[in-house]
Amino acid sequence: MKAGRHGDAREGMGAGCRADSDRMGLMEPLDRQVGFLLEADRLKTVLRQTTLTDRSRRENSAEHSWHLALMALVLAEHAPPGTDLGRVMAMVVLHDLVEIDAGDLFAYAAPADQARQEQAERTAADRLFALLPPAQASSLRALWEEFEERTTAEAKFARALDRLEPMLINMVTEGGTWAAHGVTADQVLTRVALIEDGSPSLGAYARTMVASAVDRGLLAPPREA
Amino acid sequence: MKAGRHGDAREGMGAGCRADSDRMGLMEPLDRQVGFLLEADRLKTVLRQTTLTDRSRRENSAEHSWHLALMALVLAEHAPPGTDLGRVMAMVVLHDLVEIDAGDLFAYAAPADQARQEQAERTAADRLFALLPPAQASSLRALWEEFEERTTAEAKFARALDRLEPMLINMVTEGGTWAAHGVTADQVLTRVALIEDGSPSLGAYARTMVASAVDRGLLAPPREA
Repeated sequence: MKAGRHGDAREGMGAGCRADSDRMGLMEPLDRQVGFLLEADRLKTVLRQTTLTDRSRRENSAEHSWHLALMALVLAEHAPPGTDLGRVMAMVVLHDLVEIDAGDLFAYAAPADQARQEQAERTAADRLFALLPPAQASSLRALWEEFEERTTAEAKFARALDRLEPMLINMVTEGGTWAAHGVTADQVLTRVALIEDGSPSLGAYARTMVASAVDRGLLAPPREA
Repeated sequence: MKAGRHGDAREGMGAGCRADSDRMGLMEPLDRQVGFLLEADRLKTVLRQTTLTDRSRRENSAEHSWHLALMALVLAEHAPPGTDLGRVMAMVVLHDLVEIDAGDLFAYAAPADQARQEQAERTAADRLFALLPPAQASSLRALWEEFEERTTAEAKFARALDRLEPMLINMVTEGGTWAAHGVTADQVLTRVALIEDGSPSLGAYARTMVASAVDRGLLAPPREA
């Protein structure tokens, strides 16, 4: 991934002028980008069900997104050959921004709640990406859609990381959200299939973790054993 | 940035076995990578001086690193032409990991404290990167060193973003750390020079922000005006 054209050196208007400028339709592209970046700060206040590994508090979606970007870098060799890691990192950095408006929904929520969440996230995407200059709004929204649709190698790998991260945390927090919500091994194995689709080796690793979690009593065995 | 070879599909040993396996020298590369990623979780507990934009609490270094990765993506056009954005994102994701052992030092700390911090960060890098498989430990440490040395276009841009982020937050939090620590405009302008070196247009924007912050009373005017 290479940088595009060089932005002209010019004076920005400063964050304090953003609201007035926007009303007058005079906002410069860089002011819009800064406005978007400041709005994005709110992702640091969106809490997930997962805790930190030290169990001191719940994880927020911004630091979770950072963890996925680090995973993309460290686990790169587990992506299919030719996977564009810059795109993977871009997707994981963007993927949860919609939670600023929609909030985080627990992975094992009921289907009706999942459907409502999907609609709320689309509405959030409409609002948030529109803060950016129009061409950039389109290209970054397309990256977010790509992550959601999970058809490209990059999106499949990014989604695999998104599923793997809470599993790793659960393994070192006495079952974490599995134990807290009574999740069973068959529910987790359904999600492991998606990890396998993005990375066979990480999928195999996740499958072994599930077996180990059942052995250690961190995860209830499959309901239909 | 492209993914390297495909990792062989194989069974990982699961997080629960890591400590024993390491003592026996039997750890598989993927187990080492997972061990590193779980250790990295601790960056979420390292607090910076900067607060969130809503001032509800101090920012941690993991979510700060995510914010920089998002800035790299959104402000890409402000990097010099040909800048490899994948490398920039990799650097900002890694850059603060050493704070897991060394803690965060306020940007305007005394020179003696800065020197002590630098040594503590080197010691931390020795320990943390060594958790990874050896070849990967070398390549990721090299990326961290590149960020620190600030000689390549990628490192200069990454460092510019690292300086710009707390300035943006200070602008929308009534002066934030500037006001809390009595920082003056001349001190901030010294740091703006480094932003300009990584990105002339972002440097110009930052310079305008400083002037605006002085006008609004968020920042004390230069001592030698």
